[in-house]
Amino acid sequence: MIVEMVTGATKEQVDHVVDKARALGFGIQLNQGTDKTVVAILGSHTGKTSTDIFAVLPGVESVSRIMKSYKLASLEFNPKPTKIKLSGIVIGGKRLAIMAGPCAVESESQLMETAKAVQKLGATVVRGGAFKPRTSPFAFQGLKEEGVKLLAKVKTDLGIPVISEVTDIRDIELLAKNVDILQVGTRNMQNFTLLKELSKLRKPILLKRGLAATVTEWLTAADYLLAEGNKNVILCERGIRTFEDSIRFSMDISSIAVIKRFSHLPIIVDPSHAAGHYAYVPSIAKAAIAAGADGLLIEVHPNPEEALVDGLQSLNLPNFEKLMNELRPIAEAVGRSI
Amino acid sequence: MIVEMVTGATKEQVDHVVDKARALGFGIQLNQGTDKTVVAILGSHTGKTSTDIFAVLPGVESVSRIMKSYKLASLEFNPKPTKIKLSGIVIGGKRLAIMAGPCAVESESQLMETAKAVQKLGATVVRGGAFKPRTSPFAFQGLKEEGVKLLAKVKTDLGIPVISEVTDIRDIELLAKNVDILQVGTRNMQNFTLLKELSKLRKPILLKRGLAATVTEWLTAADYLLAEGNKNVILCERGIRTFEDSIRFSMDISSIAVIKRFSHLPIIVDPSHAAGHYAYVPSIAKAAIAAGADGLLIEVHPNPEEALVDGLQSLNLPNFEKLMNELRPIAEAVGRSI
Amino acid sequence: MIVEMVTGATKEQVDHVVDKARALGFGIQLNQGTDKTVVAILGSHTGKTSTDIFAVLPGVESVSRIMKSYKLASLEFNPKPTKIKLSGIVIGGKRLAIMAGPCAVESESQLMETAKAVQKLGATVVRGGAFKPRTSPFAFQGLKEEGVKLLAKVKTDLGIPVISEVTDIRDIELLAKNVDILQVGTRNMQNFTLLKELSKLRKPILLKRGLAATVTEWLTAADYLLAEGNKNVILCERGIRTFEDSIRFSMDISSIAVIKRFSHLPIIVDPSHAAGHYAYVPSIAKAAIAAGADGLLIEVHPNPEEALVDGLQSLNLPNFEKLMNELRPIAEAVGRSI
Amino acid sequence: MIVEMVTGATKEQVDHVVDKARALGFGIQLNQGTDKTVVAILGSHTGKTSTDIFAVLPGVESVSRIMKSYKLASLEFNPKPTKIKLSGIVIGGKRLAIMAGPCAVESESQLMETAKAVQKLGATVVRGGAFKPRTSPFAFQGLKEEGVKLLAKVKTDLGIPVISEVTDIRDIELLAKNVDILQVGTRNMQNFTLLKELSKLRKPILLKRGLAATVTEWLTAADYLLAEGNKNVILCERGIRTFEDSIRFSMDISSIAVIKRFSHLPIIVDPSHAAGHYAYVPSIAKAAIAAGADGLLIEVHPNPEEALVDGLQSLNLPNFEKLMNELRPIAEAVGRSI
Repeated sequence: MIVEMVTGATKEQVDHVVDKARALGFGIQLNQGTDKTVVAILGSHTGKTSTDIFAVLPGVESVSRIMKSYKLASLEFNPKPTKIKLSGIVIGGKRLAIMAGPCAVESESQLMETAKAVQKLGATVVRGGAFKPRTSPFAFQGLKEEGVKLLAKVKTDLGIPVISEVTDIRDIELLAKNVDILQVGTRNMQNFTLLKELSKLRKPILLKRGLAATVTEWLTAADYLLAEGNKNVILCERGIRTFEDSIRFSMDISSIAVIKRFSHLPIIVDPSHAAGHYAYVPSIAKAAIAAGADGLLIEVHPNPEEALVDGLQSLNLPNFEKLMNELRPIAEAVGRSI
Repeated sequence: MIVEMVTGATKEQVDHVVDKARALGFGIQLNQGTDKTVVAILGSHTGKTSTDIFAVLPGVESVSRIMKSYKLASLEFNPKPTKIKLSGIVIGGKRLAIMAGPCAVESESQLMETAKAVQKLGATVVRGGAFKPRTSPFAFQGLKEEGVKLLAKVKTDLGIPVISEVTDIRDIELLAKNVDILQVGTRNMQNFTLLKELSKLRKPILLKRGLAATVTEWLTAADYLLAEGNKNVILCERGIRTFEDSIRFSMDISSIAVIKRFSHLPIIVDPSHAAGHYAYVPSIAKAAIAAGADGLLIEVHPNPEEALVDGLQSLNLPNFEKLMNELRPIAEAVGRSI
Repeated sequence: MIVEMVTGATKEQVDHVVDKARALGFGIQLNQGTDKTVVAILGSHTGKTSTDIFAVLPGVESVSRIMKSYKLASLEFNPKPTKIKLSGIVIGGKRLAIMAGPCAVESESQLMETAKAVQKLGATVVRGGAFKPRTSPFAFQGLKEEGVKLLAKVKTDLGIPVISEVTDIRDIELLAKNVDILQVGTRNMQNFTLLKELSKLRKPILLKRGLAATVTEWLTAADYLLAEGNKNVILCERGIRTFEDSIRFSMDISSIAVIKRFSHLPIIVDPSHAAGHYAYVPSIAKAAIAAGADGLLIEVHPNPEEALVDGLQSLNLPNFEKLMNELRPIAEAVGRSI
Repeated sequence: MIVEMVTGATKEQVDHVVDKARALGFGIQLNQGTDKTVVAILGSHTGKTSTDIFAVLPGVESVSRIMKSYKLASLEFNPKPTKIKLSGIVIGGKRLAIMAGPCAVESESQLMETAKAVQKLGATVVRGGAFKPRTSPFAFQGLKEEGVKLLAKVKTDLGIPVISEVTDIRDIELLAKNVDILQVGTRNMQNFTLLKELSKLRKPILLKRGLAATVTEWLTAADYLLAEGNKNVILCERGIRTFEDSIRFSMDISSIAVIKRFSHLPIIVDPSHAAGHYAYVPSIAKAAIAAGADGLLIEVHPNPEEALVDGLQSLNLPNFEKLMNELRPIAEAVGRSI
């Protein structure tokens, strides 16, 4: 940590900072500049210490952190990219993970029809929400347990892994028993109660980025999942909230390169929730693969007009087929496959 | 809802929209403009219907909503400002609610010392966190049950109501039994699982605004709390995430006027979390009262240098005393009292 | 325009809105809903009328616009994508426009060396700033007229078109005489004085998106350039300001699809200013091409360590060569070429 | 500046940084931490040097700045708050500066009627736009020279100073001759060409904050105005662009405290442009004064329904009178007067 004193800070104030740092077991180095005194606070555990501890002291102007606040998710901690193996597929490998399916599981026929179709078109995982966190309490909240059972049926009947969202610690057991990947939604990225319970599993967890979370906060939330030893964490970029109002969320395409520079975890992209409208999904999906993402999470519905949730952002089957055909040469162009 | 067709939409496309609306029980009115056809969809339940249902239809360019997505929290639903009575105080009345205390309960002596001091200086509620949701899993997570018990002791010994945060449905019972107001933190504003359980209580719930939630989303989250009949909902503005980096969160001072225009719920302001630094707290607190807020939630610590959590944003006792003295004439200037 | 009256608006208030609309020559259609009255205001020139004219009337709750505020830049106005021809190249055609070169022209040797190298590697336009708008008045402000002359030399000697930024109406003549494309920088996107003067030219103008401009505002600014008959407008997405702090600006990759849906103007992408760091440039550049951009504006410097401006975001020549090689198959995958 | 090397940086890489710093005349201090090497770069002119110069070197992970990028606007440079005297009033003194008047000068009668009324109600400066930068080229652009002449008439006839916006360097002379304060609008905050010319004047300049400018960028833009010796710079906060859509811009109320902590320049607040709707103006205006602002810039129109520009955000005369009456006790509560 770098502690910058105010201009004219007294010797006592500087000593106070130095004493505090030493009391906490840190090394220190003093830089007496021509204008200002700067105290560098050194030690491998500064990342776990709040900058406030020094910022609150008299005569301190600001404190900046050198060590990042996340550790387990960092490339420094684990210099080899993580590959997650499940049910015959690898996430983070050469072959892209294409997770496709309806936003919400609505019925056996709707789910099964979609699952078969996307599997045939090259999807490697089937997605489907059984528990739906909705902005309004008056909106459809999902089929719940019945939806989970239908996902389990897809897994058994079609031999394809399934992913579904967990929103409540009381549902973890049910989901862990029936689906291959548990998804933490954007509104729960910092639901630490939920993250701590999921950290005890050994199942893959897909952690969506919070809609206003920085990349650093996102990786720090991943640390919660990794803290109890679960190594199977997949990041999912899904767009951030900005002032732009022509689409629902602004896809932060750069986060892919940032994650690849600082973390070992695989990252996939959800173009559907960012776009909010099917017309924008293909362009964003193609960009994500070109940028280096390890896969996609896409909403597909056999009849978007009749979808109970998020029909507008769902691709119908012909459009999904068209997109898969367009993605293939791009995947190859960046050394991947579909 | 207003459905705008694309230029050149066919009669079949317009009819499709009209039929869909009628099938859902809505009235419709057709506006054939010189350039574009616009379909107005009418009925008192359009607020509960997703705009996607129409936006997904062929030939539709955009759909905008006239009815707001929240209902129970709206001034239209309840045209009289809500006043919440508890343990001898009223929130939303002429007298401002000043909730003060440490960010985290650290020990009996720390809590009791602070509680006595803030009570003497005019605070009407004592705040203190027992369960602390922290960005990093390596940070102090609160005294938990022991902290709740200490808050209950403050309530009994000093006869002042207490408020504390709930982060886990498993803690609701404990908190509901021991504290007067349950606080939903910014990261849980859309933790719908938690909101649904809290809606079953009849205790006051303070709902902090999500750090990137619009006012509309915030009021819609309040609808979750109100949906099961709990009428005791207090809104708390605590700053939003923006590009500005000189303070931690940008205090959205205008939300006070917006809330007063559209909702009957009382609103208080937390200047401490927005500021992130004690130097900015008084200016923001004074602005909030002048803008029309019904109270404040302020972090106060007898010794911020030793605080385990958020010391930098805590006022020490002399600074809290000074602020209370500065707030009094401002409160009077806007027809309130402290 | 759609005017929503407040619940309980009187007949006089509704009549006032209707009379105002008729006085302005608009048609109107009245929708008396069960809860609210809504007035639809119709006519082809509503896009030129401020919504405030109605929002200010008594009894009005809100006014929303159906016609977009831009017209000349819209796909409705000109349903065929615009192709801009200059000095043997076409912007908006099948072949991508790759504009590369140093952020600032520093010397003849620096510019000439870079220009030759990027031309050889496939760039179709050479970029170089002669007038540099800098955040701080103490920073290097460019070689000015001398820089323009060096760009003209590149154009003559190498037979490749050049682009340079205009920041002052007094420099328009000099630049128009010497360079092929005039660039309007992000901080001048709404410098309407400058836009109006540039609209009188017939030279191609590249209009960078303002760092906090919505797509709608950007296209409306393009209308300023198009208003006097200059049809040669190129849009350039360069990232927007958000809360994310791991890179300089968040690349709004989705704006490419949005622009393609609503405008006929070509759009290119500047990955360098968004990234702020050379390590992120390739990932963003590849994403842009996959998303459907018509080209790139990239900073390249033979020796970034010695660059006077923005060295950190500049690619050195080996990295530019590597990127061009990586871009080629992606361009082909989306039906374009380099 | 603090240069953080990557984990595992070689001795050569560290030496390279050190050599570069020494070549530029800086002192350096080396911190060899247990995990990382950190190089502190010292000297009073580091604020004028780009961090990129070091960030671009091999083995560097990040560079952070300790010295701020602005200098002349800082409280360190000038530790006494600046008071600006003009035509019998002082901006930055005990008495608040209340600048009121129409958004645009529309006619002699409109301007004169408003000016007389606001003067009588306690305004100390009359505002009025003669050159209007408008988002759309089809909107009313102001009365231009005729408008300036009308403002000069107000000044002469009523003996009250006037303020008007400058958007074009060609208008500076006209405005400087006729008005007391020249206003730089939000879209021109980083129009450095304009700032440089204005810096040569000795007239007061009101610098509005850019709609997405950080406080640091704003103060650095003020440095442009101060660089040629003009000391009469007034800052004007007018709201920033965020995701919130219930009002036009989010008033950044905290910037007042931040500016007061780091700068000597007076700061006033424009509640009208932030609000975008007259209903929100009073709440924001009162908050601004309570927060410590030195004055207000308010739009007032005798008949907002007929205003050519921004009628919706203008107060009519009764509402302005009411606000002035409400502001007086708040001003007194914070030790100021109106």
